[in-house]
Amino acid sequence: MRLLPGFQHKRGESMSIRNFFDAASVAVIGASRTPGKISNAIVKNLISSGYGGKIYPVNPRESEVENLKAYPSVAALPEKVDVAVIAVPAVRVLDVAAECGEKGIKNLVTITAGFKEIGREGLEVEKNLLALCRQYGMRMLGPNCAGMMDTHVPINTSFAKGFPRKGDIAFFSQSGAMMVAILDWSHEAGIGLSKVVSLGNKADLSEIDFIQDAADDPYTRVILCYIEDVIDGSRFLDVVSQATRKKPVVIYKSGTSQAGALAASSHTGALAGSDLAYDIAFRQCGVIRARTITELFDLATSFAKSPVPKGPRVAIVTNSGGPGIITSDNVELRGLTMSRFTKETLDALREGLPAEAGIYNPVDVLGDAMEDRYRFALERVCGDPNVDSVVVIITPTATNKPVETSRVVIEMKKKNPDKVFYGAYIGGAALAEAKEVLNRAGIPCFTFPEPVIASISQMVKYHEYRTSQELQRGLKFDGIDRKAVKAVFYDVLRDNRLVLLGSEAAEVARAYGIPAEPVSLATTPEEAVEEAEKLGYPVVLKVSSPKILHKTDVGGVKVGLGSPEEVYNAFLEIMENSQRFMPQAVVYGVEVQKMMPKGTELIIGMTRDVQFGPMIAVGLGGIYVNLLKDVSFRLARGLSRQEIERMITETKAYTLLRGYRGERSRDLNALVDAVGRVACLALDFPEITEIDVNPVFAYEKGLSALDVKITISVS
Amino acid sequence: MRLLPGFQHKRGESMSIRNFFDAASVAVIGASRTPGKISNAIVKNLISSGYGGKIYPVNPRESEVENLKAYPSVAALPEKVDVAVIAVPAVRVLDVAAECGEKGIKNLVTITAGFKEIGREGLEVEKNLLALCRQYGMRMLGPNCAGMMDTHVPINTSFAKGFPRKGDIAFFSQSGAMMVAILDWSHEAGIGLSKVVSLGNKADLSEIDFIQDAADDPYTRVILCYIEDVIDGSRFLDVVSQATRKKPVVIYKSGTSQAGALAASSHTGALAGSDLAYDIAFRQCGVIRARTITELFDLATSFAKSPVPKGPRVAIVTNSGGPGIITSDNVELRGLTMSRFTKETLDALREGLPAEAGIYNPVDVLGDAMEDRYRFALERVCGDPNVDSVVVIITPTATNKPVETSRVVIEMKKKNPDKVFYGAYIGGAALAEAKEVLNRAGIPCFTFPEPVIASISQMVKYHEYRTSQELQRGLKFDGIDRKAVKAVFYDVLRDNRLVLLGSEAAEVARAYGIPAEPVSLATTPEEAVEEAEKLGYPVVLKVSSPKILHKTDVGGVKVGLGSPEEVYNAFLEIMENSQRFMPQAVVYGVEVQKMMPKGTELIIGMTRDVQFGPMIAVGLGGIYVNLLKDVSFRLARGLSRQEIERMITETKAYTLLRGYRGERSRDLNALVDAVGRVACLALDFPEITEIDVNPVFAYEKGLSALDVKITISVS
Repeated sequence: MRLLPGFQHKRGESMSIRNFFDAASVAVIGASRTPGKISNAIVKNLISSGYGGKIYPVNPRESEVENLKAYPSVAALPEKVDVAVIAVPAVRVLDVAAECGEKGIKNLVTITAGFKEIGREGLEVEKNLLALCRQYGMRMLGPNCAGMMDTHVPINTSFAKGFPRKGDIAFFSQSGAMMVAILDWSHEAGIGLSKVVSLGNKADLSEIDFIQDAADDPYTRVILCYIEDVIDGSRFLDVVSQATRKKPVVIYKSGTSQAGALAASSHTGALAGSDLAYDIAFRQCGVIRARTITELFDLATSFAKSPVPKGPRVAIVTNSGGPGIITSDNVELRGLTMSRFTKETLDALREGLPAEAGIYNPVDVLGDAMEDRYRFALERVCGDPNVDSVVVIITPTATNKPVETSRVVIEMKKKNPDKVFYGAYIGGAALAEAKEVLNRAGIPCFTFPEPVIASISQMVKYHEYRTSQELQRGLKFDGIDRKAVKAVFYDVLRDNRLVLLGSEAAEVARAYGIPAEPVSLATTPEEAVEEAEKLGYPVVLKVSSPKILHKTDVGGVKVGLGSPEEVYNAFLEIMENSQRFMPQAVVYGVEVQKMMPKGTELIIGMTRDVQFGPMIAVGLGGIYVNLLKDVSFRLARGLSRQEIERMITETKAYTLLRGYRGERSRDLNALVDAVGRVACLALDFPEITEIDVNPVFAYEKGLSALDVKITISVS
Repeated sequence: MRLLPGFQHKRGESMSIRNFFDAASVAVIGASRTPGKISNAIVKNLISSGYGGKIYPVNPRESEVENLKAYPSVAALPEKVDVAVIAVPAVRVLDVAAECGEKGIKNLVTITAGFKEIGREGLEVEKNLLALCRQYGMRMLGPNCAGMMDTHVPINTSFAKGFPRKGDIAFFSQSGAMMVAILDWSHEAGIGLSKVVSLGNKADLSEIDFIQDAADDPYTRVILCYIEDVIDGSRFLDVVSQATRKKPVVIYKSGTSQAGALAASSHTGALAGSDLAYDIAFRQCGVIRARTITELFDLATSFAKSPVPKGPRVAIVTNSGGPGIITSDNVELRGLTMSRFTKETLDALREGLPAEAGIYNPVDVLGDAMEDRYRFALERVCGDPNVDSVVVIITPTATNKPVETSRVVIEMKKKNPDKVFYGAYIGGAALAEAKEVLNRAGIPCFTFPEPVIASISQMVKYHEYRTSQELQRGLKFDGIDRKAVKAVFYDVLRDNRLVLLGSEAAEVARAYGIPAEPVSLATTPEEAVEEAEKLGYPVVLKVSSPKILHKTDVGGVKVGLGSPEEVYNAFLEIMENSQRFMPQAVVYGVEVQKMMPKGTELIIGMTRDVQFGPMIAVGLGGIYVNLLKDVSFRLARGLSRQEIERMITETKAYTLLRGYRGERSRDLNALVDAVGRVACLALDFPEITEIDVNPVFAYEKGLSALDVKITISVS
């Protein structure tokens, strides 16, 4: 839902939302005296949060609420408050918002439900509410939200039970219930939070605005979101890719996107699937995507406590073999590597540890190890240049000293600020205090090794993303003829079509420097022969009809035609076959194309996501493309040459392109160029909904695109 | 490690290990008075576990230990105890074991370390220890183990701190440290256990014996294992596939198997990867494989508490939208399906719930729902025939009654014993009591939806496995000529080779009814022509040399030869190319084979795992087989036609075989037959280490295997 697009540009850029948190005064409109009522809970929460500003209950039927003087109306308030929390019945919300506007109030938190979420009627009211906000220059959280909190200000305009521990994790939730549930759970999980916001219907402010604000908030180290959709994909990418340069953003996205439903006719669309756009959008702006709620908070804890490791090399120090093996398995599984120690490290470990100890990574200091032996091993391991992260594992034994060992780990961290430390203390009561000591000192300590390694892996990926960002350069191409494309589209629309003929699509591709073989459209056998003579033999003939998508299947393709006679006869046969198998299809004629020598068969494609725009695909092509599913995707937006190279290396096609089983390598540069040009075409012409370039033959030198399909939309 | 294979058959079948748990008397050899010593801890644990039998400390230097009379030697014991726990220094273990044997003691728990795990020397002593056990007919747990427990007897011969809550989960751990760690953790996780065994070095008894025993233990509902390897794959498959028919077996297997290292030369071997054998072995005997330690216990909790759902259809009742979406996402992700309610159910829900409620699955009873509204919705949902499992979600709200809602869920479960119920109560303190109420009533309740859905999914898979087992029938084939195979192998070994020539491999395949095209070996161009005339043109010529594995790459293959002249020249060219590119390779001549029309290219293969024997593969073939990696694996052992069909349907090749994009379907029956015959060949001849049949062309009617590679071993 995009409301009043004219305001899009202004949102979040010119107007700060800082005052929502740093408010000097808050009015609660509709504040009730009745305990249990939402509007009463808000006043109580404001008071009990320790909020230092002024609180004004507004209620015509009360003279005081929770020992605070109540005002009969917004107009009667003694000052222009910073934030108005609206908790009146839905039918009253528009009036109250207008009153706030008249009063000069700039920030609304609309708790009241009964808007978009109840259907069309509610959506209308919500649009009017937003229009009012625009008219008076007000920003609004909600409607249908549970409010917001900041533990550092402190302030709490929500009706949720309980106030979180002070911490450095900001949490923005599109579900109010999830926010309340997680708040409740955060206490026993020992998680502290800086800001908590229930986003509600996101009529005005959304996660984008709060991410932008939290990116500059000194009390927030990690930004967490639970969202069900992104409303403005373009702004999301802009803002969030800036935020992730400053601090990690971890998002749990639920629900299935609608991207898949739009694109049914193209190969690329069918391959994209429903959730892919979010996946690649998150990746391209550096968002860490959590796959479970538990992972969301495991990652938050890690990122909040620990610096990001410099690389993927993990060392393990353990007092028992089994957990060491489990952890090594996970290191491999998660794409990290086990540190290989230098000879010096190994010699020192061999000399200083008992003979039965394991000195290769994982280092097994044995079940009878006390803190001294851990210290000895950790000193050597930390001194090794091949170690980026150190995982300390403890299992309970009769003799070990877990708390003292935690202190050793803390000491190591102080001496080695460039290394990242984690604890996996496998046990319950016997290790509880030791865990607590480690966690309090800012070293993440989990019970089992799996979340430790998963966290390190995500942190390393985040580090790699931030490093790689510095190398990115945008795409720039010569020899692009926009006018030629417009001219083709003009003809197509005049012909009342949305699918381009093969000849038209090839022309569009060629106008963007995509190496498509020219296609001529012949309407008589004589014309076909004439075109073939011009192109040179052998040629291929294909039926030209927007309704016939799989031409081979209806006998609409003839290849390897080497003479005028063959061309003549092929034309007639194709027309006959088409009439027989697809009598209802309008046939525009037969396309004539030079037959090209076979190369490595690839596909380059584009399908458009409603939120995030064009998605570009590259991979193994040919008629088995949907079977092999060897395709890598990226958003066209912000694509760089480096990123195109990376997407190619992710495919199996890359193995073929490099030269498989003795074959010569193919022209990778030409492929990168062609993919980039398809991306430019899709960005320049938003009316293109789908592109399939399949097959593209890749040769030792150059490419040749044999078949281009382009679909456009009217809008 | 296989020690004294002569005893393999007797193990575990004739001798019960029940007495290890149901012991009427236990001697602790080496029992010390010194607190903190392992041998002292064992005596204390025996006493404090409430063990009702007799306890005899044995120690020549003590007269009493923990107020129990101590005996100077095993010989001095007043009776032939049921179990002797050996906790003496490693150098004394052999003597003590012999004394136990002389005394007539049948069950040893050897705690002492310093055997196989310290290297070759220790392994020798361990072998001698096992030989002693065999000599006296003793069974032994360990050495190098932490002991064992049974909470129902009760008995505790371990030195671990703490004794678990009584429960119905048996846990067998190859790592003593993991056992102790998990014991410690189990208290705070609220997990009860029936038996706990530290397996140690598994010199005699292993997880196989304890799984067999626990399968018949009335106090055990679920069997859990942490293992690092399986020593006797064949017995594991026999015993465990019997056990899984009685109760669920959940295994966490760590460490990387060595299977991959053995098989390097074949395509099939390269595709198998290192951990695959365990994966398919577990699957084929119905083991549920946990991927994390947390999952191991989540699954245990589920299986212990809940009956297995009858099908994959899940209904969700929630008081808020967000968690409902998360849960639905997970249902799809885990291969389950969302229940579609009948019209009656929908009508009833629409009528009885507020207008804003969600009546389609997930059913959203709204944030102000109290227990009555949950009851109403649950009654309708439970009454729907399309529901197998019901997930009840609660998030904390100001008004809801979580404990009362739990009671409603318990009431529903009583009324609907055929449905499976789960709770996902997202929150902390506000829901703690309600969670406890549900869990105590035997309904698994987790904090987040993900483990709920993961558990249901594994339970449904287990149910499907058990149901499908009833349909399985073994493989039986006619027309198998074992003598012909032996004759070929005899020639190969006499020639000092292990790799069969193409002509030999085709002969072996044909002897088993695998439809390989006959291959003739020609050593002169004249012979080649003669063979071609016999077979009929066109023919294919291929160089015959065990050293040249990829013949195409060295110009060693000529196809489509249509005349005597072409055959003659091709022979000469192949010999020249081979000499030029592989001058060091011994060339046996040139193979002549009839050229077959192209069909769907498949591979059938076999690679042998050290533990679990032959693994059979089928999938897309041709020269890109390793690139496409479209191969499905099964163990040859116990393979049925149904299972072969299932393995084919798992591949992309299946899509082609059914008839892709208008092509005709291929002969699936012939393929199932050929796969089964390859499995039989591999089972009949353990000396075959690898088979690659690639490509196999599949036609509308029949198959044709063009190239067969077989490698054998001497042993």
